[in-house]
Amino acid sequence: MPERGTYVVTTLLDVNEVQNVDDRGESRTYLVADVASRKAIIIDSIIENVERDLTLVKELNLILAFAVETHIHADHITGASLIKDRTGVPIVYGGGAEAVVTGADLFLHDGKDLTFGATSIRALATPGHTDSCTSYWLPRGVFTGDTMFIRGNGRTDLQGGSSKKLFESVRAKLFTLPDETVVYPGHDYNGRVASTIGEEKRFNPRLNLSIDLDTFVDMMNKRRAPLPEKIDIAVPANMKAGRV
Amino acid sequence: MPERGTYVVTTLLDVNEVQNVDDRGESRTYLVADVASRKAIIIDSIIENVERDLTLVKELNLILAFAVETHIHADHITGASLIKDRTGVPIVYGGGAEAVVTGADLFLHDGKDLTFGATSIRALATPGHTDSCTSYWLPRGVFTGDTMFIRGNGRTDLQGGSSKKLFESVRAKLFTLPDETVVYPGHDYNGRVASTIGEEKRFNPRLNLSIDLDTFVDMMNKRRAPLPEKIDIAVPANMKAGRV
Repeated sequence: MPERGTYVVTTLLDVNEVQNVDDRGESRTYLVADVASRKAIIIDSIIENVERDLTLVKELNLILAFAVETHIHADHITGASLIKDRTGVPIVYGGGAEAVVTGADLFLHDGKDLTFGATSIRALATPGHTDSCTSYWLPRGVFTGDTMFIRGNGRTDLQGGSSKKLFESVRAKLFTLPDETVVYPGHDYNGRVASTIGEEKRFNPRLNLSIDLDTFVDMMNKRRAPLPEKIDIAVPANMKAGRV
Repeated sequence: MPERGTYVVTTLLDVNEVQNVDDRGESRTYLVADVASRKAIIIDSIIENVERDLTLVKELNLILAFAVETHIHADHITGASLIKDRTGVPIVYGGGAEAVVTGADLFLHDGKDLTFGATSIRALATPGHTDSCTSYWLPRGVFTGDTMFIRGNGRTDLQGGSSKKLFESVRAKLFTLPDETVVYPGHDYNGRVASTIGEEKRFNPRLNLSIDLDTFVDMMNKRRAPLPEKIDIAVPANMKAGRV
């Protein structure tokens, strides 16, 4: 289990996208601060929101330690490289992204910890939405990226996605965490901010414990969604850690 | 100080409004649950989101005790009466609304507590955005409605609003709470979910401690904003606790 520092999670909503309802991503960025040391990490920043995010870091008197990514996003460009340019902090991707991402400083492989002050996050390799998706766990909370949403999950038809892998990632890596663990997703389309592992085990319509692999794969195979509007610019940029 | 039960605040974003960017209200609803008893209150529900909210109450196995309003909203219709129809819970407005609101079951006057399980909220009369605005304080948190936002405040040019009263409400009622008190606003337009009293004392651009009453009033007098799109249906409906 990662170290038990006292930490505070600040949820930041994407305000850029609301100018365009058709491309509404409802993306979520998280600022996780270790209280004692004031060291902090930012997870899944968005390039257009970096100014707001760094203003908040400064106002809260935090020392930014890492810019962390759950995966190679297809719907927005990460702010990681811009944050690095502005602050010098290292960029961290999950271990699965090592073969495909340039511009990152550290790849956190499955089971490895990243420490800031007395708090650590642990990488959980959770492929399925993309082949290199990583969730980050810390005591009482987990950042699930697009692997698992509140009552939903990320699409599995792009970027090396696999419904079988996603199902197995959720069951083996996320649903083995304590039920009271808070779930902080990469997006939410229904106005929720957080959930818990226990809630998702019971109420996630595609992933709850009563559903088996074949049923899940079948549900995902029947799902049709348009391509993310920004995919052709976002994926190449994010494979360079958001360097545009 | 209100009783110190262990409580959990769930922030719920308005998902109805995103269909119409021009009328983007970024309204916030809060579900506050007393952990031991599972009794809960919902603050500033929105009529279009009631189904979602009650589903969550059910899933979380909560016992809804009260539907609480911070003020007579001009931008959306409260879900209070629909929730009462569906669950039977009493509707609570702040004491200042007693002369103008029908359909409420209880008016919580300044300094009075409302108890659910081992948790209580205390009404703080904070007129200024409207003449009957009430904030609700519980240990470590305060629901400020439209009196104070994160780095902002509600308009003061409608519904008996008064810049002088708002300034005095913030200084006398909100800024006297402990600095670490979490601020849960009625809206946020910049993707923030919560702030603290200490942050707002320092960084609120119109209300921080370096600004005096005359300067604040002058800033508000110079502010121009269009009427809320739904004002002509929302205010009359909300004066009947959302009965439409």
